[in-house]
Amino acid sequence: MKAEIFSIGTELLMGELTDTNSAWLATRLPALGIELLGVSIIGDSLAMLTEGFTRAWQRADLVLTTGGLGPTQDDLTREAISAALQETPTVQEEALKELERYFQQRGRSMPAPNIKQAYLIPSAQFLPNRLGTAPGWWVEWHGKVIVAMPGPPAEMHPMWDEQVEPRLRQLVTGDVTITRNIKTMGLSEAAVDESIAEFFGRENPYLGIYSKADGIHLRMIARARDVAMAQAMIKPVEEAIVTRLASYVWGYDDDTPEQAAGKLLTERGLTLATMENCTGGYLVNSITEVPDSAAYFKGGVVAYSQEMHLANGVPLEVMQQHGTVSQASATAMAQAIRAQLGADFGIGVTGVPGPLAVEGKSVGLAYFSIASASTVHAQEMRVPPRRITMKRRVSNTALIELCKLLRGETR
Amino acid sequence: MKAEIFSIGTELLMGELTDTNSAWLATRLPALGIELLGVSIIGDSLAMLTEGFTRAWQRADLVLTTGGLGPTQDDLTREAISAALQETPTVQEEALKELERYFQQRGRSMPAPNIKQAYLIPSAQFLPNRLGTAPGWWVEWHGKVIVAMPGPPAEMHPMWDEQVEPRLRQLVTGDVTITRNIKTMGLSEAAVDESIAEFFGRENPYLGIYSKADGIHLRMIARARDVAMAQAMIKPVEEAIVTRLASYVWGYDDDTPEQAAGKLLTERGLTLATMENCTGGYLVNSITEVPDSAAYFKGGVVAYSQEMHLANGVPLEVMQQHGTVSQASATAMAQAIRAQLGADFGIGVTGVPGPLAVEGKSVGLAYFSIASASTVHAQEMRVPPRRITMKRRVSNTALIELCKLLRGETR
Repeated sequence: MKAEIFSIGTELLMGELTDTNSAWLATRLPALGIELLGVSIIGDSLAMLTEGFTRAWQRADLVLTTGGLGPTQDDLTREAISAALQETPTVQEEALKELERYFQQRGRSMPAPNIKQAYLIPSAQFLPNRLGTAPGWWVEWHGKVIVAMPGPPAEMHPMWDEQVEPRLRQLVTGDVTITRNIKTMGLSEAAVDESIAEFFGRENPYLGIYSKADGIHLRMIARARDVAMAQAMIKPVEEAIVTRLASYVWGYDDDTPEQAAGKLLTERGLTLATMENCTGGYLVNSITEVPDSAAYFKGGVVAYSQEMHLANGVPLEVMQQHGTVSQASATAMAQAIRAQLGADFGIGVTGVPGPLAVEGKSVGLAYFSIASASTVHAQEMRVPPRRITMKRRVSNTALIELCKLLRGETR
Repeated sequence: MKAEIFSIGTELLMGELTDTNSAWLATRLPALGIELLGVSIIGDSLAMLTEGFTRAWQRADLVLTTGGLGPTQDDLTREAISAALQETPTVQEEALKELERYFQQRGRSMPAPNIKQAYLIPSAQFLPNRLGTAPGWWVEWHGKVIVAMPGPPAEMHPMWDEQVEPRLRQLVTGDVTITRNIKTMGLSEAAVDESIAEFFGRENPYLGIYSKADGIHLRMIARARDVAMAQAMIKPVEEAIVTRLASYVWGYDDDTPEQAAGKLLTERGLTLATMENCTGGYLVNSITEVPDSAAYFKGGVVAYSQEMHLANGVPLEVMQQHGTVSQASATAMAQAIRAQLGADFGIGVTGVPGPLAVEGKSVGLAYFSIASASTVHAQEMRVPPRRITMKRRVSNTALIELCKLLRGETR
């Protein structure tokens, strides 16, 4: 099955809003065996939309749209589908009552323009929207399918998960594609590439290599008659790669460094505290992204002045002798915050975030240390001199090294 | 002048990489007087790309592409343009030498496939790439223009700023569009809407209203013969809105709360320190996004345990008497961190980030306080129970309230 995606709305073309729906949907199609031919962002123009539908199904079997289902005159997705199919929309009484109930429950009466949202054409069925006023449309027409979904991700995602994906799964008869992502840290892209060279260049399973802020990712894509067969094709390649790269592998698929570290801390019943300067709070903010982090995370200090290092127990003589940006200071920070909060592990991060050099050290230099009661793991890093790059790379690396320590793979 | 944008690369259709180039380019076109008709994401297929070019210039005068200029067999933008124009690419000696020099300077010899990057067709000129190996193409053909740029944003952005935009500016003869964004905080969308109702519904300047994590934005769009005329159309509307909304206006255009607060602190020579729990480091991480923040920001504490509140001077009796999640605790946090670091202002933030209720208080409740030597500004908030929503909204609101205090608009 071949698909096209339309993201609909002039605001997307004016740069007022960024389309995230297409990328979200794109990641969900391969496992259904649906090949995505293209994505188009189209403005609120009846002519452009109608032309888009007409053109798309010359090559695609499925058109997925998001946006343009609101109540205003600019919301034209329903009108364009109707025009392309040459069918006339009529108001559905049941749907209209539903809408009126929606507004009543919120203590308001339904504004007149919302009546559009109760429109339907003979080839379409409603996809109920439990989070907003705009129902979607599921359209079957001459062997083609059009699925029109609302634009707000909070409404579109559950509609996709609960209604659209299950229906598509029944419809699709072709091969399925599954992907598996292995995440590594600690080897360069070239070194990873070389150590598993023989797996590249195959068509199925296909192996891709990507350099990201949390390390080198290896992505396998397998295509087969069903999911079990595709998984069986991936399994031996995955096992070979994981054996080869061993302790450099820190996660899979959507794992983040903070989730991986949080899971290990929870399993082992251990706690963590942090003190950072050059990463400016990115480290602590990442850690607290995990909903259960309060169970293992005691707190973090972002020290942007010497007073703050001192107030949190970093000895003045260490900073004076070695500089605030030094491995010794990173270790002192890790040990001080660990002791202060009675945590099992402390992470200390120090470096030069820019724009200016510090203590004669250049922008992009960083040190981190991970301290437990009896051990210190220390690491120096040099990253490109961009503030956000330093924040991301150094924070991610520190969390992934913590994972290795927790798994007993590093001293 | 009417334009289309192509983002090129199969990885964009597989969900491996999200297209950010289109949205970046889209925001830059209106001020040049260029109307964007549509955006397409197209895979690495010669047939699809060639068809795309052929179709696009039936309605557009300008096609902007990003991606597909690399050295591999999958990089087909040059080939597709050549095929669509029926011109044959030849290797340019000068460009080839340039490429070889690029690799030499990095101590390597040029890999054979890179020779493609020295291709040119008669209708095209090179756009030099000072940050990578892929030069762009500027193509003029039968009154149409195609601009092919590399995919990595770090290479594409400077190529656009330094070469493409200046050339387009000379070419464009139609009307220009300029936008102006007024950012407000503290009034609901409905209240803002009502207080400036008479400015909505006009075509030119057009006024839009948007609810964002940092408040309600009002975006004006004016179209005129030149920038000065468009600005003159916006000016009276802007002045009326700013007069009407007065102290609720905290910034313009791309201003962020942390930039606005940083600018005011710098101007007044004042310093800041923070202590937060429910925002988990989002507040401090935002503050340190500003490159010069070290000049006015002393540091931040992220207290994720009672020990950490205590260690930083929050009195136990305040937390016991009022609860950690209380206005009294927020104030104690602000005052404690202010005193500890000798800062002019302290911000304290406390709340319930979820997933669980705390002290019988429900997820989404938050308090912040801003303390100076003699004053305390206190505020209670209730936000939707999503971790990232709480982090963003509460942090942004606290920084914007700090701006009001610094401007003397609040007690």
